Amino acid sequence: MTDGRYRVGVVGAGMVGERLVEVLERRSFPMDELRIMATSARRQTMAGREREVVLTSEAAFEGLDIALFAGTEGETGASQLYGWKAAERGIFVVDNGSDYRMDPRVPLVVPEVNPEALRGHQGFIANPNCSTMQMVVALAPLHRAAGLKRVVVSTYQAVSGTGRAGVRALAGQRAGAADLGPYPAPIYNNCLPQVGSLKGKYAGYYSEEVKMIEETRKILGCPDLPVTATCVRVPVENCHSEAINAEFERPITPEEARRILSRSEGVTVVDAPEKSLYPLALDAAGQDAVFVGRIRKDPSRPNTLDLWCVSDNLLKGAALNAVQIAEKAIEMGLI
Amino acid sequence: MTDGRYRVGVVGAGMVGERLVEVLERRSFPMDELRIMATSARRQTMAGREREVVLTSEAAFEGLDIALFAGTEGETGASQLYGWKAAERGIFVVDNGSDYRMDPRVPLVVPEVNPEALRGHQGFIANPNCSTMQMVVALAPLHRAAGLKRVVVSTYQAVSGTGRAGVRALAGQRAGAADLGPYPAPIYNNCLPQVGSLKGKYAGYYSEEVKMIEETRKILGCPDLPVTATCVRVPVENCHSEAINAEFERPITPEEARRILSRSEGVTVVDAPEKSLYPLALDAAGQDAVFVGRIRKDPSRPNTLDLWCVSDNLLKGAALNAVQIAEKAIEMGLI
Repeated sequence: MTDGRYRVGVVGAGMVGERLVEVLERRSFPMDELRIMATSARRQTMAGREREVVLTSEAAFEGLDIALFAGTEGETGASQLYGWKAAERGIFVVDNGSDYRMDPRVPLVVPEVNPEALRGHQGFIANPNCSTMQMVVALAPLHRAAGLKRVVVSTYQAVSGTGRAGVRALAGQRAGAADLGPYPAPIYNNCLPQVGSLKGKYAGYYSEEVKMIEETRKILGCPDLPVTATCVRVPVENCHSEAINAEFERPITPEEARRILSRSEGVTVVDAPEKSLYPLALDAAGQDAVFVGRIRKDPSRPNTLDLWCVSDNLLKGAALNAVQIAEKAIEMGLI
Repeated sequence: MTDGRYRVGVVGAGMVGERLVEVLERRSFPMDELRIMATSARRQTMAGREREVVLTSEAAFEGLDIALFAGTEGETGASQLYGWKAAERGIFVVDNGSDYRMDPRVPLVVPEVNPEALRGHQGFIANPNCSTMQMVVALAPLHRAAGLKRVVVSTYQAVSGTGRAGVRALAGQRAGAADLGPYPAPIYNNCLPQVGSLKGKYAGYYSEEVKMIEETRKILGCPDLPVTATCVRVPVENCHSEAINAEFERPITPEEARRILSRSEGVTVVDAPEKSLYPLALDAAGQDAVFVGRIRKDPSRPNTLDLWCVSDNLLKGAALNAVQIAEKAIEMGLI
């Protein structure tokens, strides 16, 4: 660090890596160096101009203050190879991969929700799963007001969550190609009730569903919070949507929920169903906010709300939150 | 009726009308006349050959034994104009429209679930809503075994549920057209959390959601069953998918549920998540069954299962069930 400016590394040059570069520049992150690493050295256009990308290696981290790992869904992330070594060298690491999120040494942070988890960090912070992220931003303010009792969530996840391979698969299938890309079945004209692999601790749940259960508990600091999830990939290019059924300990009306969420950081309420206004994936693309609407009193159980939540999974669900973690740590004097 | 054969009318020549003709012929329904009516007289290719379509009028029902109304989502259906008059003339009417489903004079029937509701009919039977239909086929056998206590459902509904206009809108938008068709926002690359209009009795719920609540109760004969629904249109051409969270009065394991559903009429279990086998919209198209999979024990509440249910909304969700109602009424000696 020199004069309050940091040397920042971005590890990964896929869709999330690209968004990391965009977000750092758009938010005027205090940098005097931005070093981009990937699995090959090359020149690549990112965030509007051609950049030098260096090969990821231990040496490439030399001199950095902060390293943001883009993470790879479903594969061994660079953070396993380089993350802890960087942290041990005093680099503040934020990892968007899933490898260490449930590690007790690692704070799992959404700055609007649990910034205090950053205190006493060991140099390695995890960025939550995209589906979990937007749900937690929407639910945390309501949880503080009325106490969450149980969550049932169904997701409508975009192919960008699988990176360029997912986007390519959908585009290719739309054009008539048979290539399944990263998916076990066609995504075009189909809904795939499988996100991730079957290795979770709950029989029959895929890993994305287990992440939504476990990460929500860790972020909210409620280790036994009852949560269940069905995660579904839909033929949408970008932005995840979620139907959330949230039961609370204490009464909370839709009006109260709207009032609370309207003044909550990072949330935009779009909720005028009589005018067909509600959050939509197409509207959320490129936006920083978590959009919440269709807030209504579930007639099937007391103190329960149904709501609909949409966010750009590459921004708040990934790159934006990672940058916000670094910003918050600087603000708190932790870097 | 002559020699056990019936004069059958199909009212409507859209996607459901077309499926009605196909299903009647494929199942060798005992007909000696098939009369097709629509809002204009014309010749139209249906179920593989050109047919005469006559203008719907009171006179056009003359001599029929059975009339199957295809119904129109969201508009005044032909059944309002002609349905009861036909029933009063002794014609056995099955209405796929939504106008009379909750009318106490009208049985709302899924033959696998509540055939007994046909007894004492007044000549007018309602065919349930497509989303409700497939859910009830999946849940009724489990309800009989363990007693349903509460249902939380999120739907992933195909554009064919809005008829040809819906299919055209999605196809047009895929090709770059801006025309929204029957929807309040683009359906391409988007998930629309609005199916129907905002006129239900539960504040903030759209009509499809209210149908899923009220029709499920009526069909299962549980007038107070707690049900909540979020109904979402997705960019899929045909077949509805549903994520269902079902709580029961008594314990029921996923293994028991699979065993029960495997021997239930109208249900096909596809549930091998370790091999990425689960029901899919693309596989269900053109099939009669309701496909159920991803059956798992919800870790968030006792006696609760999560499951995934897919069916062809034009077949079991509409035309097939209407024909099955007529077949069942014949079998029971009620026509």
